Amino acid sequence: MAGIGVTEFVGVARGDTIGLVIANVDDEVRKAMNVETKYRSIGIVGARTGAGPHIFAADEAVKATNAEIVSIELPRDTKGGGGHGNLIIFGADDVSDVRRAVEVCLGELERTFGDVYGNEAGHLEFQYTARASHAVAKAFGAPVGKAFGITVGSPAAIGVVMADNAVKAATVDVVGYSSPGHGTSYSNEVILSISGDSGAVKQAIISAREIGLKLLAQLGAEPVSDTKPYI
Amino acid sequence: MAGIGVTEFVGVARGDTIGLVIANVDDEVRKAMNVETKYRSIGIVGARTGAGPHIFAADEAVKATNAEIVSIELPRDTKGGGGHGNLIIFGADDVSDVRRAVEVCLGELERTFGDVYGNEAGHLEFQYTARASHAVAKAFGAPVGKAFGITVGSPAAIGVVMADNAVKAATVDVVGYSSPGHGTSYSNEVILSISGDSGAVKQAIISAREIGLKLLAQLGAEPVSDTKPYI
Amino acid sequence: MAGIGVTEFVGVARGDTIGLVIANVDDEVRKAMNVETKYRSIGIVGARTGAGPHIFAADEAVKATNAEIVSIELPRDTKGGGGHGNLIIFGADDVSDVRRAVEVCLGELERTFGDVYGNEAGHLEFQYTARASHAVAKAFGAPVGKAFGITVGSPAAIGVVMADNAVKAATVDVVGYSSPGHGTSYSNEVILSISGDSGAVKQAIISAREIGLKLLAQLGAEPVSDTKPYI
Repeated sequence: MAGIGVTEFVGVARGDTIGLVIANVDDEVRKAMNVETKYRSIGIVGARTGAGPHIFAADEAVKATNAEIVSIELPRDTKGGGGHGNLIIFGADDVSDVRRAVEVCLGELERTFGDVYGNEAGHLEFQYTARASHAVAKAFGAPVGKAFGITVGSPAAIGVVMADNAVKAATVDVVGYSSPGHGTSYSNEVILSISGDSGAVKQAIISAREIGLKLLAQLGAEPVSDTKPYI
Repeated sequence: MAGIGVTEFVGVARGDTIGLVIANVDDEVRKAMNVETKYRSIGIVGARTGAGPHIFAADEAVKATNAEIVSIELPRDTKGGGGHGNLIIFGADDVSDVRRAVEVCLGELERTFGDVYGNEAGHLEFQYTARASHAVAKAFGAPVGKAFGITVGSPAAIGVVMADNAVKAATVDVVGYSSPGHGTSYSNEVILSISGDSGAVKQAIISAREIGLKLLAQLGAEPVSDTKPYI
Repeated sequence: MAGIGVTEFVGVARGDTIGLVIANVDDEVRKAMNVETKYRSIGIVGARTGAGPHIFAADEAVKATNAEIVSIELPRDTKGGGGHGNLIIFGADDVSDVRRAVEVCLGELERTFGDVYGNEAGHLEFQYTARASHAVAKAFGAPVGKAFGITVGSPAAIGVVMADNAVKAATVDVVGYSSPGHGTSYSNEVILSISGDSGAVKQAIISAREIGLKLLAQLGAEPVSDTKPYI
């Protein structure tokens, strides 16, 4: 991927994901983007398909580098699917920091796409982290430092039952609940986000995954992961 | 469809529609969903494709059962088409009531998809009820108890001409008018909703349907219904 | 296309575009549409795919006729792509004026689609006018009478780098910057709009186009124009 003659280019990944950096953002553009002046350099990750996978990947990136999260935006996309795409901006004083953040983020995607399951009717998604950092805090309001996870169902109806199931399966705190008209970009999803004891969050997610897979299978083929489940 | 081992599952229908129930909604999830405590049980209908068909089917469901409408949300969906999907929540004190509502709703969809016409360029939709109840009241502001109908055109430009044509064809009251930037979830539709004398509402819709079918045919094949027209 | 027996029909064009007129808009519909009474006649252009091409085409239409722009709305569409469709309403006292505007608009589309480049992963778009008129003023806040242009990248990440690149390539004024969560209808695009000296605006766009084409090519095939580049 090197040698395309564009210094801004870092790499690509699944989901039509592209990673980019700008060493010195133009002042006019910075102002229009609402990026603070302390971030001389920005890293950019964007994709047509995926929001959870990229946000949880970005969370690892901010843990592993000096870059910070500037903004996370969620287009209504997935190329005809029921979910979101994403645009994530990292900021740092030095371009090597944001480049490293973008690299870490791209590198995590193979893992964070592991619990995304799809068929011709819809998709399910599950994410988990033992220690939430500033990307999932920004995107989902996660309490930093605590175990945190999400369950996502599309069509949204399946997400409702998964949410109820998750919270009944273990003692967890409901951090957020998003639906087509509230908290999503009009995606056809219900997203539950939960926090709490590490084992409890995991148990809640695993329980929701079990019922979600059975329900989505009623609308089409057995839902499958494109990579390898990690939860 | 029985025997999948999930008590929440009720059934599926066209449009990637799934019907579900929760007998006792978890209190944390109920709060997050903004469901009143008087609804111990909820019924859930959701689909990737369709809003009008499901709302008018839900209207029959609330007429036929003790369940009430809790919420109606419209994702921007239809799997690459120009319209909406849906997420409809019924509420009742008893799970048998919401289960019955979901069953009635799923059962009505074959009929309410009857006046949905599509081709490779877009779709048209027409719905009519002789007596509006609380689902169409919630979704469209329909006056309860009166004849009510909608005309939907996508691309939205066709919906504009259908709206004008409908209102000129008979003496009806304009209840609402939604367009991509006002009142839809950024769908590519213009939706007219009308009320009034039963014969007049029907006449207005039939007239709009006639011109809409001719216009959409200019962008592709003859638009066809997937089921059987009912208006 | 003549002889379909619908006086409202004007014509069709690429992008599932349809052009229509209503000689005397019904008063109830006019009110619901929020169209001023001075516009007895309206012209309607709408499409599943395209916003920039249609807005810049409409700009030529208002320059060339007595019709004015009533409204421009942007559904989240493009049939599974990452961008917008459109619904543009022209107004005039006389139906011949809006018909002429619709005809000019449809006629310009072959040109204004010239700098739209797509592949399986996304699209890029560039538009330029030496003298902005009331359509681009309404849609983008362009200063009337001045040279004006836009750069659009999808996935949005590519649009960020193009925006920075454009503004560094020439001395131009940033008029606007839209992203998935700010100023678009949740499309997966970053849109930069710029004004200034004619040569500078063109130079900025050409520079952004060069880098954008290289970046989008990393996610799929060489992006191509469906018609003929004009900038």
